[in-house]
Amino acid sequence: MGSRSNKRIGKQTVKLQNPPKIITTTSIVGPKEGDGPLGEYFDLILKDDMYGEESFEKAESSMMYRAIKDTIKKANLREENIDYLFAGDLLNQLTSSNFAARDVNIPFFGLYGACSTMAESLGLASLIMDGGYADYVIASTSSHFSAAERQFRFPLEYGSQRSETAQWTVTGSGAMLLSHEGNKPYVTYVTTGKVKDYGIKDANNMGAAMAPAAVDTIYKHFKDTGRSPKDYDVIATGDLGLVGKKITEDLLWEYGYNVKNVYIDCGAIIFDHERQKTNSGGSGCGCSAVVTCGYLYKQMLDKDIKRMLLVSTGALMSTTSSLQGETIPGIAHAVAIEYD
Amino acid sequence: MGSRSNKRIGKQTVKLQNPPKIITTTSIVGPKEGDGPLGEYFDLILKDDMYGEESFEKAESSMMYRAIKDTIKKANLREENIDYLFAGDLLNQLTSSNFAARDVNIPFFGLYGACSTMAESLGLASLIMDGGYADYVIASTSSHFSAAERQFRFPLEYGSQRSETAQWTVTGSGAMLLSHEGNKPYVTYVTTGKVKDYGIKDANNMGAAMAPAAVDTIYKHFKDTGRSPKDYDVIATGDLGLVGKKITEDLLWEYGYNVKNVYIDCGAIIFDHERQKTNSGGSGCGCSAVVTCGYLYKQMLDKDIKRMLLVSTGALMSTTSSLQGETIPGIAHAVAIEYD
Repeated sequence: MGSRSNKRIGKQTVKLQNPPKIITTTSIVGPKEGDGPLGEYFDLILKDDMYGEESFEKAESSMMYRAIKDTIKKANLREENIDYLFAGDLLNQLTSSNFAARDVNIPFFGLYGACSTMAESLGLASLIMDGGYADYVIASTSSHFSAAERQFRFPLEYGSQRSETAQWTVTGSGAMLLSHEGNKPYVTYVTTGKVKDYGIKDANNMGAAMAPAAVDTIYKHFKDTGRSPKDYDVIATGDLGLVGKKITEDLLWEYGYNVKNVYIDCGAIIFDHERQKTNSGGSGCGCSAVVTCGYLYKQMLDKDIKRMLLVSTGALMSTTSSLQGETIPGIAHAVAIEYD
Repeated sequence: MGSRSNKRIGKQTVKLQNPPKIITTTSIVGPKEGDGPLGEYFDLILKDDMYGEESFEKAESSMMYRAIKDTIKKANLREENIDYLFAGDLLNQLTSSNFAARDVNIPFFGLYGACSTMAESLGLASLIMDGGYADYVIASTSSHFSAAERQFRFPLEYGSQRSETAQWTVTGSGAMLLSHEGNKPYVTYVTTGKVKDYGIKDANNMGAAMAPAAVDTIYKHFKDTGRSPKDYDVIATGDLGLVGKKITEDLLWEYGYNVKNVYIDCGAIIFDHERQKTNSGGSGCGCSAVVTCGYLYKQMLDKDIKRMLLVSTGALMSTTSSLQGETIPGIAHAVAIEYD
């Protein structure tokens, strides 16, 4: 069968030999996210979620463009210094990412992993950096509440009532710049997820659909690396929300791992659910992106978090697959970030 | 600015130090593609493009699943031997790829590059192999005429008349298995494209929208590598069709490169356009996938082609972006494949 690649440990994890650093990040959010508990950590809070554009979709694309441009600027670089952009979003045919990529002059890999895309883009960007294929790479994602509602559920104008287990798509975009320079938080492990499907069909209960994928990836990460929850200050799933978070905790406990003391969910902490009426919590590609680029990254710079595992989680349905009676498969990718 | 990564040459190209081999491929096509000039080169020709499923979308997903499974089987491997699957398609939220990935037990990176996805997935898979992160990687894409028509244009039941410059989405899926074993065609260069937009708005003239991206990537490939058209037996764009192919030839000539003797377009050769009424030619992710996995790969094994440059080309519009008056950006990725 040939000799096993020496950089992989276990079945699904790569241990980086030459860990790339996340030298700067940008987080941009809408007014509602800015009004939530993490408001102070975001770099830019939009006053209006149209962001001066004619459509929600264009507003989302502009947010991502701004996140990418600001990230390059903060690092005192120019577009031509960036070797690759890895980006994705929730819209059909990656509308937001493609149009953002059109306006920056950077070789572009478009990705789709639903809400798992931040860890997918960061994971692939980290492998490309570790392998010596690039000096500077940007990983980015975005989502927009109003664009997602009309694409996946109902246009807001219908005034449909929201289910108790429904999540609230985060309006926001995050961008991370990777390089080998300086002393900044760095990526040590990339655990790539498999698609998992436990037969959930309710698009208003995506936390439950994604939880088994999160559990599988976290469990494989522990098995592959020999680590356990006590090796992390924070394990952060992307957007399982309150419902999916509980399922994940319980299932990991059944596998013998008690994550309770270190486990947070980006979707569960981005809103004040009672006051902001966000039911089961935040969701969307932008959710783990802005919470990681804003809150968690800044906590790492302050040394309040020294080791974290980002586990972005995606529900891989489309309106077509749901209408055709298909269940909702989930996927989760994990990236370990550390700072001494 | 730090030392430049030593594996990149020029601005957009990686020269692989440890070229992965494409040890086997599978190509599956619909009846119309099987009836075309390349019919004899495809591994499986479906008798019915529903492929025993209840919907076009499920048929497309099943084709990709079968292409992946057959590829693994031909190499005498099992799913658990495959380290990564890189795959994408044209459907909203990668419906075909996600549901195919659900049914194979392989860590999965979902990609969206419209019809450029075969070169995007092969390019990323090649970098991951070259970097020593995997022993076996599969790159795959699919498209389906009827699924694409109803998503991007009109449901077939409307009987809409087709424009002269319209292309015909290929029903097909291709899968390639990369490894370091054996003596097979191998990947030497990966040139990653940038998004280019020259203001075309007509979704029935995608060849013209994509041609500038193809020209840009081919030109950068020549500049970065020092190669020229005479270094290749074949330069194959993905699906520019007859219209886009002419534009590409003319623009490259303006840049000083005469590609005429080696240049083919997968979309231009897959159908007999007059007899099969395919107007400007074939298109779709599946087009460059099946032509490469079927016709071109087999020509390489027979040593009729020793050096080829695959340049899959994507039109990055969505129905939403088109309805909102946006132009159609294009992207092209190039991968050099050689066999001594």
